[in-house]
Amino acid sequence: MSVDMAIKVLEESLGKMVLIKLKGGKVIRGNLHGFDQHMNLTLEQSEEIMEDNKTNSLGTIIVRGDNVVIISPPPR
Amino acid sequence: MSVDMAIKVLEESLGKMVLIKLKGGKVIRGNLHGFDQHMNLTLEQSEEIMEDNKTNSLGTIIVRGDNVVIISPPPR
Amino acid sequence: MSVDMAIKVLEESLGKMVLIKLKGGKVIRGNLHGFDQHMNLTLEQSEEIMEDNKTNSLGTIIVRGDNVVIISPPPR
Amino acid sequence: MSVDMAIKVLEESLGKMVLIKLKGGKVIRGNLHGFDQHMNLTLEQSEEIMEDNKTNSLGTIIVRGDNVVIISPPPR
Amino acid sequence: MSVDMAIKVLEESLGKMVLIKLKGGKVIRGNLHGFDQHMNLTLEQSEEIMEDNKTNSLGTIIVRGDNVVIISPPPR
Amino acid sequence: MSVDMAIKVLEESLGKMVLIKLKGGKVIRGNLHGFDQHMNLTLEQSEEIMEDNKTNSLGTIIVRGDNVVIISPPPR
Amino acid sequence: MSVDMAIKVLEESLGKMVLIKLKGGKVIRGNLHGFDQHMNLTLEQSEEIMEDNKTNSLGTIIVRGDNVVIISPPPR
Repeated sequence: MSVDMAIKVLEESLGKMVLIKLKGGKVIRGNLHGFDQHMNLTLEQSEEIMEDNKTNSLGTIIVRGDNVVIISPPPR
Repeated sequence: MSVDMAIKVLEESLGKMVLIKLKGGKVIRGNLHGFDQHMNLTLEQSEEIMEDNKTNSLGTIIVRGDNVVIISPPPR
Repeated sequence: MSVDMAIKVLEESLGKMVLIKLKGGKVIRGNLHGFDQHMNLTLEQSEEIMEDNKTNSLGTIIVRGDNVVIISPPPR
Repeated sequence: MSVDMAIKVLEESLGKMVLIKLKGGKVIRGNLHGFDQHMNLTLEQSEEIMEDNKTNSLGTIIVRGDNVVIISPPPR
Repeated sequence: MSVDMAIKVLEESLGKMVLIKLKGGKVIRGNLHGFDQHMNLTLEQSEEIMEDNKTNSLGTIIVRGDNVVIISPPPR
Repeated sequence: MSVDMAIKVLEESLGKMVLIKLKGGKVIRGNLHGFDQHMNLTLEQSEEIMEDNKTNSLGTIIVRGDNVVIISPPPR
Repeated sequence: MSVDMAIKVLEESLGKMVLIKLKGGKVIRGNLHGFDQHMNLTLEQSEEIMEDNKTNSLGTIIVRGDNVVIISPPPR
């Protein structure tokens, strides 16, 4: 079993842009500034991406982990 | 792993206006007066922001943490 | 971190009228008689506030904490 | 903090009629025969109260606590 | 507080027909063969009761406890 | 109290066809290959059963236990 | 009881294509790169499979385990 896999991917993504899909369909992009074992995330320069691909600037935010469905780190 | 990241952002926001997005779509703005590790929050001079951008004054409130989706601290 | 903030606000509200917003949209007003760390609440002389601002008397009630979204203590 | 408040109200209601509101809108009235710390309840001579105020007899039932929103003890 | 009340009612119902109401509205009747503290249940000769009171035979089943709303033991 | 009842029924069903009803209405049939105390299940030669009774082959699958409503073991 | 069954299937699937069905109906296919006991998953070269069978490339992603309904390992 590889318990630390998610954490390793998140650590490698610190300081980089990640894409977050939340329950209910909200999509957020931002610079990953921190995270914890519940997948609580802090993002900087974040923005919500609307269905029409317009964006809505959110600045620095904390995302509560239980809302997270998928985290996409940046391509390597 | 950076467990204390969310707490650090919340501590820096104490006494400042934060924007809270809740499950179900409610949006609340208020002066952050306290928080705990469940993201239970106490806000002062808070108001609900309606879809038409009108506001509804709520005064001092406690928000139960499991309803929180996103917390936006004030711009630095 | 200020873990006891919510509890302090609740303790100061004991014996006073509080407004409770529940998941699903129900709104209840009552005299706060007790609470615990799960935000289970006991209210006296409580009433449900309908969308048309009519009220429905509930008397003494126990509210199970996991239904709570927001607690508004009385203005100081 | 008054942790035992809900339990005190429930204990005083043993053997008396209580009104239970459940998630999803079901309303049940019955004689409170027992409870535990999860708000699991046993009711006797219980009945479901329909929206048209008709009742549907349920007899003795166990209510799983996580469905409970509000418990109304009898007026004192 | 009477923690063992639900368990006592369930134990007295072993080997007897019980009616189970589940989240989402499903109603199941069956012979209670076992249970645990999560209200996981095993039923024998069970059947689903449709809204038109037709029944759909299910035989022996395990019901995961977190789906349970109400358990009706047989009348004594 | 009979804590091991569900486990006994599941153990007796190992290597046999079981029917699984999931939250949201999905129905799956498969050969029970394993399970744990959360009702996580591994099924082999599994298939989803559609509302029109057509089937959709799924092969070997893991079902996360918190989605499970009912498990029907094979008739004895 | 066979607690390690799900983990054994997941370990055998490391480095192989798996199909993931999520709550809400999203379907994702990707190369399984890691997992933990909560069924948090890391996938590489992943893509979302739309209802019309078109695919939407997602690259490397972390899936939070509580969204997972079914994991289909590759046929052996």
